[in-house]
Amino acid sequence: MPQVRAFGVQDATSPVVPFQIERREPGPFDVQIEILYSGICHSDMHQAHNDWGNSLYPMVPGHEIVGRVVKVGSDVSKFKLGDLAGVGCMVDSCRSCSACSEDLEQYCEKGAIFTYNGKERDSETLTYGGYSEQIVVDEHFVVKVSEKLDLKAVAPLLCAGITTYSPLRHWKVRAGQKVGVIGLGGLGHMGVKFAKAMGAKVVMITTSAEKGRDAKHLGADEVLLSRDAEAMAAHVGSFDFLLNTIPVSHDVNPYMALLKRDAAMVMVGVLTPLDPPVQGVNLIFGRKMLSGSAIGGMAETQDMLDFCAEHNIVSDIEMIDVAHVNEAWARVAKNDVKYRFVIDMASLKQAA
Amino acid sequence: MPQVRAFGVQDATSPVVPFQIERREPGPFDVQIEILYSGICHSDMHQAHNDWGNSLYPMVPGHEIVGRVVKVGSDVSKFKLGDLAGVGCMVDSCRSCSACSEDLEQYCEKGAIFTYNGKERDSETLTYGGYSEQIVVDEHFVVKVSEKLDLKAVAPLLCAGITTYSPLRHWKVRAGQKVGVIGLGGLGHMGVKFAKAMGAKVVMITTSAEKGRDAKHLGADEVLLSRDAEAMAAHVGSFDFLLNTIPVSHDVNPYMALLKRDAAMVMVGVLTPLDPPVQGVNLIFGRKMLSGSAIGGMAETQDMLDFCAEHNIVSDIEMIDVAHVNEAWARVAKNDVKYRFVIDMASLKQAA
Repeated sequence: MPQVRAFGVQDATSPVVPFQIERREPGPFDVQIEILYSGICHSDMHQAHNDWGNSLYPMVPGHEIVGRVVKVGSDVSKFKLGDLAGVGCMVDSCRSCSACSEDLEQYCEKGAIFTYNGKERDSETLTYGGYSEQIVVDEHFVVKVSEKLDLKAVAPLLCAGITTYSPLRHWKVRAGQKVGVIGLGGLGHMGVKFAKAMGAKVVMITTSAEKGRDAKHLGADEVLLSRDAEAMAAHVGSFDFLLNTIPVSHDVNPYMALLKRDAAMVMVGVLTPLDPPVQGVNLIFGRKMLSGSAIGGMAETQDMLDFCAEHNIVSDIEMIDVAHVNEAWARVAKNDVKYRFVIDMASLKQAA
Repeated sequence: MPQVRAFGVQDATSPVVPFQIERREPGPFDVQIEILYSGICHSDMHQAHNDWGNSLYPMVPGHEIVGRVVKVGSDVSKFKLGDLAGVGCMVDSCRSCSACSEDLEQYCEKGAIFTYNGKERDSETLTYGGYSEQIVVDEHFVVKVSEKLDLKAVAPLLCAGITTYSPLRHWKVRAGQKVGVIGLGGLGHMGVKFAKAMGAKVVMITTSAEKGRDAKHLGADEVLLSRDAEAMAAHVGSFDFLLNTIPVSHDVNPYMALLKRDAAMVMVGVLTPLDPPVQGVNLIFGRKMLSGSAIGGMAETQDMLDFCAEHNIVSDIEMIDVAHVNEAWARVAKNDVKYRFVIDMASLKQAA
């Protein structure tokens, strides 16, 4: 199998270092993509450091991938040589369970195969992500990218974008609604852009006045400082929807109080226990819903990219060379990025 | 104002004792009801003992009331003398907010006025509940009761019944679905009967094999013992809906795992923190919903009673004289009742 250059970690304590990986030759339905840009997601670090206890090494992170098609299998119908293409968090799924049948591959009942830190269908071959020069993926899990958009700023749409777009769509956010986006980071900044483009009145809910000002530049109509008890009280019972992007455990009760009757708060950032616990009374009085959402299916990911092309939406990014990934990771850990690092994969060739 | 006989508590440590209360003369829209049966709800004790910190004394508990109309105001259109009538947890609301406009008076934005331990619209007069010989209520908050049903067993429908019926309706439980009812008590036993009558396959989820057997007699199709890890694992991802009637804080995570993608678990019994906390991962993977529900609106309460008449559904009760309320409360505290105590209010006259 062809060797390609990549960057990744050898174990849970390893820095990001260059090495070679194997990529398969494209099968009949595969698309081979020369990766141009690869976004850095906070989960890259969690997985590199085995924070979730499920890490497989060596690991090549990266699930926010855009590039150009350089080879297509004999039965590929969606792509031709030279097309722009994107790959997100998944590269395969069972294709036959009820979730896959409903275009919700991310909830595949057999378990979707993730772009990295996963195993291919043979249950042996490790998947390797976007910190590499090429990737080979079944066309079902590859999306088309418009030539109209700033390509490097498209990369984070494949994870941060779809993760926020999908719940806004599923819970039918629309004009006339008041929508809160809680937390301003890679996810939150996309949540603001999407909710605004969908016509909602968008309120950035944050602990930081500075982030509030930034959110206004991104399109937020209003800022609610969550530590200002008086301001929070003034917004009680007024939100049609809350998108909670905070990536760590926190008290959700003050946010539940902001919801209207029958409205939902959807968690997209935190996998850990919601501690301190939600109170029964905050669910019962007002029939409020606490839910969560994981990325999005492939059809919806394409829909999101089409929506971005139509509304000229991309991520706000800071571009780096692959030689600076370790520094970028350290900054991500301190939330010191507006709002996503993207690796210029041309630098991989220079580095090698 | 006319004096009527009642039983209630003088303060948070008082036993239930007889005393006199005042009831207003019926206004134009009021119905005066001679109370025949009054159910005992666990919340009667919580409020009598000021467990929720909002108790007003003296307190006459009881919000599961059935009786006969003995007087009607000049503009009353729904009732005539001699009609059977029911009163549940509410006796008034603002009638004009968005919740009231949508027949969801229980979520009145100004706060519904509860049948007891509340204050009338004048913000002064205490409301007194069903442990009394009569009650006077605006006809909007009085429901019609079929002569076909066993009247004494209808009383608990006004709280335990509507509290379980409303979420089953709101989340559209129907034939072909697998529905779990968690916990078998006053609420749970009604949940089983309703879900079964709505056509669902009903699974009683309980810690107790004995309760499991009882649930089968009530109509449950299957029993799942929640402490049997193997049995729980076999049901993972299989439920369309879970009605959680457990009245105390508990770990909801094992139940969340039982839900299908996009399915909801609805809490109706616990107002306190859901401790240990729900984990983000259990919301995010499968886009599962954790929600709650409070009683039901007046139109839905009537709909529930009509459904009961059509399907011949009542509560399973144990009838007592008013002189035995204190013993009954002690037994309720130990869950030693199948499944609701109902006070025969004729005994009030004998006691007096």
